[in-house]
Amino acid sequence: MEKKSAKTTGAALLEQTYLPHISIDCVIFGYHEKQIKVLLSHVKGALGWLLPGGFIEMEQALDEAASKILEGRTGLTSLFLKQFKTFGSLNRGLDPATQFAGVPDFNPANLQWLSKRFLTIGYYALTEFSKVTPKPSLFDDKCQWFEINGLPPLLSDHELLIKEALRKLQLQLHHEPIGYNLLPEKFTLPEMQALYETILGKKLDQRNFTKKLVSLNLIKKLGEKKYIGGHRSPSLYKFNKRNYNKALLNGVILAF
Amino acid sequence: MEKKSAKTTGAALLEQTYLPHISIDCVIFGYHEKQIKVLLSHVKGALGWLLPGGFIEMEQALDEAASKILEGRTGLTSLFLKQFKTFGSLNRGLDPATQFAGVPDFNPANLQWLSKRFLTIGYYALTEFSKVTPKPSLFDDKCQWFEINGLPPLLSDHELLIKEALRKLQLQLHHEPIGYNLLPEKFTLPEMQALYETILGKKLDQRNFTKKLVSLNLIKKLGEKKYIGGHRSPSLYKFNKRNYNKALLNGVILAF
Repeated sequence: MEKKSAKTTGAALLEQTYLPHISIDCVIFGYHEKQIKVLLSHVKGALGWLLPGGFIEMEQALDEAASKILEGRTGLTSLFLKQFKTFGSLNRGLDPATQFAGVPDFNPANLQWLSKRFLTIGYYALTEFSKVTPKPSLFDDKCQWFEINGLPPLLSDHELLIKEALRKLQLQLHHEPIGYNLLPEKFTLPEMQALYETILGKKLDQRNFTKKLVSLNLIKKLGEKKYIGGHRSPSLYKFNKRNYNKALLNGVILAF
Repeated sequence: MEKKSAKTTGAALLEQTYLPHISIDCVIFGYHEKQIKVLLSHVKGALGWLLPGGFIEMEQALDEAASKILEGRTGLTSLFLKQFKTFGSLNRGLDPATQFAGVPDFNPANLQWLSKRFLTIGYYALTEFSKVTPKPSLFDDKCQWFEINGLPPLLSDHELLIKEALRKLQLQLHHEPIGYNLLPEKFTLPEMQALYETILGKKLDQRNFTKKLVSLNLIKKLGEKKYIGGHRSPSLYKFNKRNYNKALLNGVILAF
């Protein structure tokens, strides 16, 4: 199915290939040094940006479809995608006839398909954005990171999807460990705290934060310090991978 | 759309009325005195039980469809349904030709519709089960509560849906207040703790639990005690409705 060229994709072929009325959209958060960005793509000539998204093949499992869409539209593989919500209000704000009017060679068959009512299944992931070079797909002229507080005009309800995904990510911090793959292998407590503060969008009490992390045994102190100039040389830590994986599996109970 | 009788519902009419390939299933948890039950329905002659479920009308918002399904199939209104996950693996285990073979007057048109591949959007709710009298729908001969640890044979992947819904409910305890409508208007701390312990499936430290609740200002102590015989007369509490609603809206941050 993946080998078809854009030109042969007519309405009948779309109908035959994909489940109608259902799409997938991926909110990819990128973290780097106290910044959160979101990956967006842009169809040449369209009136706004979109989350990387696509459809589910007739005989394709939902999670598999999500991974393939992400890979095909961004070049990213093996990101751990989490499903967070299905959006199904009546007017999701996509008006392809207007919003895609400027797209060169826009196929009327595609317009017919896109003009259907779609429910979209939202997925999100969190990655280190300096490690990723997004690659635009066949349909896009641009695919790039945007600061979460400086998003460009978005089509459909994709701004709502980003907002909801961020809310779910913030909740996730309270019952699942994060940080692995987002921080250097050896990191300081202030670096770890900055990650949490950036995602939560607020300052945390340093003493409580450290106490919590230590009591969870998710990280271990190394016998090394990081030289950051001046008189301060904060201790370096690394994740206790065994406890971290156990916590991922069982959840971290943060209260009671 | 709701006024059609079962007899006039052929495949063409189903196709015309509902979005294809997408269903909704509702996991209704009932709590009462240290027990959690789940509401299940049974189509006369079918080989197993199902969660109350149904389909989305072409021009019906997703959340509205979920509420109407719940009302139509159980008689329950104004339960706060929460969407928890969309299930879309390839083989969801429904085999209508076999599992519904014993259903009297089973319409081949319905079989054709049910034999399609369906993704299902899962919703859950938590209610006080002694207050609810389930009413079987037109299609069902039975609709009743089952102990969560004593479920009857279930069709499709509905056992998985219940398991996932319970996991989400357990997580919800960590960032949202619960208890209102589940406990009497005036309740004791042991009653409140029993609710949490029943849902979490484990004992909680009584001192920590009380400390947490008091620090959140979700409940207030009344100047009354409950007489339970012997020498013990535990204090009665009630919810601080204003703080409770605020916490529902903003979430309760239980850590950091």
